[in-house]
Amino acid sequence: MAEKFCLSNPNLTDEDHLYHIALSTSDNLPQRFGDVKYVCMGGKERRMQKFAELLYDTLGKPKNSELTEQPTPGHRLKNISQSGGRYCFYKVGPVAIVNHGIGNPSLSVVLNEMLKLIHHAGCTDVSFFRIGTSGGLGMKPGTVIITKQAYNGLLENCYRQVICGKEIRYPADTNPQLAEDLLKCAKDFKIEAIAGNTMGTNDFFEEQARLDGAFCEFSRQEKSDFLKRAHDEFGIRNFEMESCCFSGLCARANLKCAIVCTTVVNRLERDDVTADKSLLEEWEFYPQQLVAEYIKRSC
Amino acid sequence: MAEKFCLSNPNLTDEDHLYHIALSTSDNLPQRFGDVKYVCMGGKERRMQKFAELLYDTLGKPKNSELTEQPTPGHRLKNISQSGGRYCFYKVGPVAIVNHGIGNPSLSVVLNEMLKLIHHAGCTDVSFFRIGTSGGLGMKPGTVIITKQAYNGLLENCYRQVICGKEIRYPADTNPQLAEDLLKCAKDFKIEAIAGNTMGTNDFFEEQARLDGAFCEFSRQEKSDFLKRAHDEFGIRNFEMESCCFSGLCARANLKCAIVCTTVVNRLERDDVTADKSLLEEWEFYPQQLVAEYIKRSC
Repeated sequence: MAEKFCLSNPNLTDEDHLYHIALSTSDNLPQRFGDVKYVCMGGKERRMQKFAELLYDTLGKPKNSELTEQPTPGHRLKNISQSGGRYCFYKVGPVAIVNHGIGNPSLSVVLNEMLKLIHHAGCTDVSFFRIGTSGGLGMKPGTVIITKQAYNGLLENCYRQVICGKEIRYPADTNPQLAEDLLKCAKDFKIEAIAGNTMGTNDFFEEQARLDGAFCEFSRQEKSDFLKRAHDEFGIRNFEMESCCFSGLCARANLKCAIVCTTVVNRLERDDVTADKSLLEEWEFYPQQLVAEYIKRSC
Repeated sequence: MAEKFCLSNPNLTDEDHLYHIALSTSDNLPQRFGDVKYVCMGGKERRMQKFAELLYDTLGKPKNSELTEQPTPGHRLKNISQSGGRYCFYKVGPVAIVNHGIGNPSLSVVLNEMLKLIHHAGCTDVSFFRIGTSGGLGMKPGTVIITKQAYNGLLENCYRQVICGKEIRYPADTNPQLAEDLLKCAKDFKIEAIAGNTMGTNDFFEEQARLDGAFCEFSRQEKSDFLKRAHDEFGIRNFEMESCCFSGLCARANLKCAIVCTTVVNRLERDDVTADKSLLEEWEFYPQQLVAEYIKRSC
């Protein structure tokens, strides 16, 4: 029998409040969430709700899902964390689906609480997935990047975590087998996808060398030197804002993780997104399709 | 006549997309937002919607507000950024109200776009306010802290901004006059409030020396030493996750700002929040009351 997931924090007790997802250890966590094998995260609430509904159909409406009391067309699943007012959270069969907002800190709050949830629920063999959109580097918009290593804005392959006033750097790598399996799904679906490194920044504008933020004190030459260096020397193929924390905390907890993001712009050519809404929606859907297919094949 | 607010970024043109708040320069920005004098930000969507409705009543239902086509009781204002799926945005008279999610990066995205909005709209004399909740340090829960200086988790009074692979530190101070005026409002309302320094972190758990996150590799002694040092040597009176970026970017743009947060726990005594829901709602309301009153008195 597989071993139960266990966090090493000695201060965790049987009484715990997962404040931002509006759950606590008095909410029957082992009974409700003990069967969770996959945790899927992404920025927008709306996207994660859509993904949850997609999974519900893909997995054949599994009984071990949490449903709303008043279903409407396309809205059958219960938002478990609604009363918290911070994040959405759905359960579909063995899959927990949550949104994480924008940026490493916003992700960090809900990821800490999801790790505590699967610890208290006594889950086994859990894999974590992040799906999202990203700025591409040298890639045709619409290409899916499956992250190998995450780099911060200073081009360090780590997650910087401050603990009681001291900074510690944790490795920020994903699981190679998960990445390979997802690439296989992409091939079967004829979705263009590659494995590449990802830069996860704390700012959307200047840290990603965009000229069109509120501020810009660097030249076009400095921008192009930085992007070229990131691409050529570090194998960076896309930019987003959560990969360092996501891979850093999953690795620290000894959990497998994968990051799957469509590129919506080629940053070697321009800063702003020009694709129209329907194309963006199609591209946004690719990571959902790939992860849903992976889960269907593995569970 | 007051001078129009102007960002110094030479790359800004008359054609600009404020992608995350679902607006662009083709949306009549000077006509719709040229009268904005106050930008009020806070984490939760729900709280900012409630604050917008409060302001709408406090300011006597001003005509220069944006209303929804189908008002329901307590929901009269239009969420201008709804189609973006990232942030909410209301306009009530001369006040723009937006939520910013959790953490400096999430705030940074919407704050950059709000700065570009008031630049393109040609606003004059704009002040920025952040309202929220926070962990207190040595303060009775329910006390309002009005931030003097913001410190990061390494106890530096600055906002660290990475630009094209290099880190730059910007001052992170608020406006003393705004703080003083808000303290006066608090006195008139008999709300307990003080001016103090605030630590704005990138993590809710270990960076704020909480023992009850997913991870904890420090001792109770290290925790207590860190909290004591923050309190005694740096005058830190509360913890939240946005003050460094908020004060840093406002100062960089030469704009006045204030940060007003209720404390919901005394971190010298415990890590978790024990107040019940109705008390928390009352405390959450204090910053809204104070900022609404300040705006009523000044506009």
